[in-house]
Amino acid sequence: MTVTTPSGFVAAGAACGIKGPNQLDLALVATDDGQPVPAAGVFTTNLAAAAPVLVSRDHLAASGGRAAGVILNSGNANAATGVRGNSHAQRMCQLVADGIGCGPREVLVCSSGISALLDQRTGDGGPRAAQAIMTTDSSPKQVTVEGERFTIGGMAKGAAMLAPNMATMLAVFTTDASVQPAQLHRALGNAVERSFNLLTTDGATSTNDTVIVLASGRSGAEPDEADLAEALWEACSDLAGQMAADAEGSTKVVRVRVTGGATSAEAARGARKIAESQLVKCSFYGEDPYWGRIVSELGSAGITFDPARVSVAYGGVVVCAGGVEAARYDSAALKAAMAQPTIELVADLGLGEGEGAVLTVDLTHGYIDENMRTS
Amino acid sequence: MTVTTPSGFVAAGAACGIKGPNQLDLALVATDDGQPVPAAGVFTTNLAAAAPVLVSRDHLAASGGRAAGVILNSGNANAATGVRGNSHAQRMCQLVADGIGCGPREVLVCSSGISALLDQRTGDGGPRAAQAIMTTDSSPKQVTVEGERFTIGGMAKGAAMLAPNMATMLAVFTTDASVQPAQLHRALGNAVERSFNLLTTDGATSTNDTVIVLASGRSGAEPDEADLAEALWEACSDLAGQMAADAEGSTKVVRVRVTGGATSAEAARGARKIAESQLVKCSFYGEDPYWGRIVSELGSAGITFDPARVSVAYGGVVVCAGGVEAARYDSAALKAAMAQPTIELVADLGLGEGEGAVLTVDLTHGYIDENMRTS
Repeated sequence: MTVTTPSGFVAAGAACGIKGPNQLDLALVATDDGQPVPAAGVFTTNLAAAAPVLVSRDHLAASGGRAAGVILNSGNANAATGVRGNSHAQRMCQLVADGIGCGPREVLVCSSGISALLDQRTGDGGPRAAQAIMTTDSSPKQVTVEGERFTIGGMAKGAAMLAPNMATMLAVFTTDASVQPAQLHRALGNAVERSFNLLTTDGATSTNDTVIVLASGRSGAEPDEADLAEALWEACSDLAGQMAADAEGSTKVVRVRVTGGATSAEAARGARKIAESQLVKCSFYGEDPYWGRIVSELGSAGITFDPARVSVAYGGVVVCAGGVEAARYDSAALKAAMAQPTIELVADLGLGEGEGAVLTVDLTHGYIDENMRTS
Repeated sequence: MTVTTPSGFVAAGAACGIKGPNQLDLALVATDDGQPVPAAGVFTTNLAAAAPVLVSRDHLAASGGRAAGVILNSGNANAATGVRGNSHAQRMCQLVADGIGCGPREVLVCSSGISALLDQRTGDGGPRAAQAIMTTDSSPKQVTVEGERFTIGGMAKGAAMLAPNMATMLAVFTTDASVQPAQLHRALGNAVERSFNLLTTDGATSTNDTVIVLASGRSGAEPDEADLAEALWEACSDLAGQMAADAEGSTKVVRVRVTGGATSAEAARGARKIAESQLVKCSFYGEDPYWGRIVSELGSAGITFDPARVSVAYGGVVVCAGGVEAARYDSAALKAAMAQPTIELVADLGLGEGEGAVLTVDLTHGYIDENMRTS
């Protein structure tokens, strides 16, 4: 279950000394014949986007949504590096293009570095590539999804929206489905919106966030766009969940669902407000059912809200109904629900049919330890 | 320097058992003759406003901006308590009104409780009142500002936007200036906007935030509105600074200034984005000059932004210019600046004349300890 699972792709991971001796820190995913295939990317919306993001975006635009390879490194985000960073990223693309026999604009880059990685690329190189992109991740993150006669493979890294070295969230998917660049672009955007974009570990929007997909067409299957988007969504959601579970210093993954909103957009906004509250995140760590704070976050989320209609449940145990403490609930069941590594929090606004959900994690001593110094 | 400093006011603090034996937990500020005087209030914008906030707001509207007393307690926020909480707050006002000889609508309430506080109110009761409203505050917060022939006295509590028991930020000011309710209302709104509203310890908007001012007119001075607003601003800023210095678990107060913005509104938005970043706040705790993260926050603040024009300075030491690491800076001076209990961070956007500033604190292990459980 990796990026080399779908037919038509090779990958490699190598150690080039960025992270330290003998540590895999440079990864390549490429087509096995060096030919460009339909490709799509979704990049950070941060205006301080790092050089590799700018270069990859340009390349995809110049090639009309086609690429033959993606080069990724870890341990150095190449963000806020100015002109120097840009020419470095360009040079990386040129080196890879020379090696695999494509044009430099048919190479996408996520961070930058250099290596003799090219010789090592093989059809079972996926796991090494997944390992090579890790920064503070505790384990490689990979996925495979089987569609109707096509396969999607993927790898990702990310253990905070932004790790100490400004490393960040990266994901690369491959598929053997046969699709046009425009379809692939829309399907990826749709999938990312409903998966990675609903994950907020600390509210930070990184300068490097990048999700790329390459489609070799080798399976011959031509899925319709909706099926492709659904399979991509499944792959993205799986990796997003792996990232949340591995988030820096966190001990719990919390799925925050807001239901009963006046609209789904308002429900989603409420869910995000709750998920980004320092106080709420501390209370998950303390396994403390801090429903008053949940209600208060909803009240200041800028959405339609009536405190008397709100109910809050942790793991199915309703602790607040009608805006006040629930008269009776099973406190043993509540305690057990809060003690789980995964908590489902549902806040119902009692107003309409709108629903929204966000995945987040708790705020812990470990998070402070990992982030109080960058080195 | 307290609320009883201006002529015409009495105050008291009493122990009524909410906090524990012999601990001051109920406070009263009132006119010395029980007559209503011009009064103004600024309340939380949270739609889950607590019962005392709803009652105080109603009373000010019904009385046309006049009040004879404010009753405040600590240790119980009376938020999310439904109909019961409302009638409790109403009853408090009635009891105080009976005691001081005014109408119930001429009493404002911040949280609720009950006591034999009325007998103790004196012209030097300010300090005891200031002590009685403390929750997790480590010391009472008081201020006096001398205007042109008038005086402003004030007290506040607040050691987090929201302390464990949903207690919160409260401030009461008194003045012997002679002003109309409408003037007082505008001057207070103006002062709060430029002081308390620029303080963000953890981004939380409490259900109870309340700032009230009563004007006895006893000095005979009739300051113009701008002078009054200025003096009130000085008093509010002083107390806001005391609150930041005493914020739960914090070790540093940081003034985040953004200059060179396309507009002042954009600069203020950028400053708030920086001040509310968990990662930036962790880095203050670690005394780590995390300028890359500052630039990244500005890039995702939704404001006009060009990374190549940004500079960042801590305590006057420029660490980033033109969007990249400053070629030379005095690292000993930087280290010394970061080690101070108060840090001045200036991020210049290099675009225009817009300026904005926000006061914040670091995110620490102590914060987590204080907030991971509500009891």
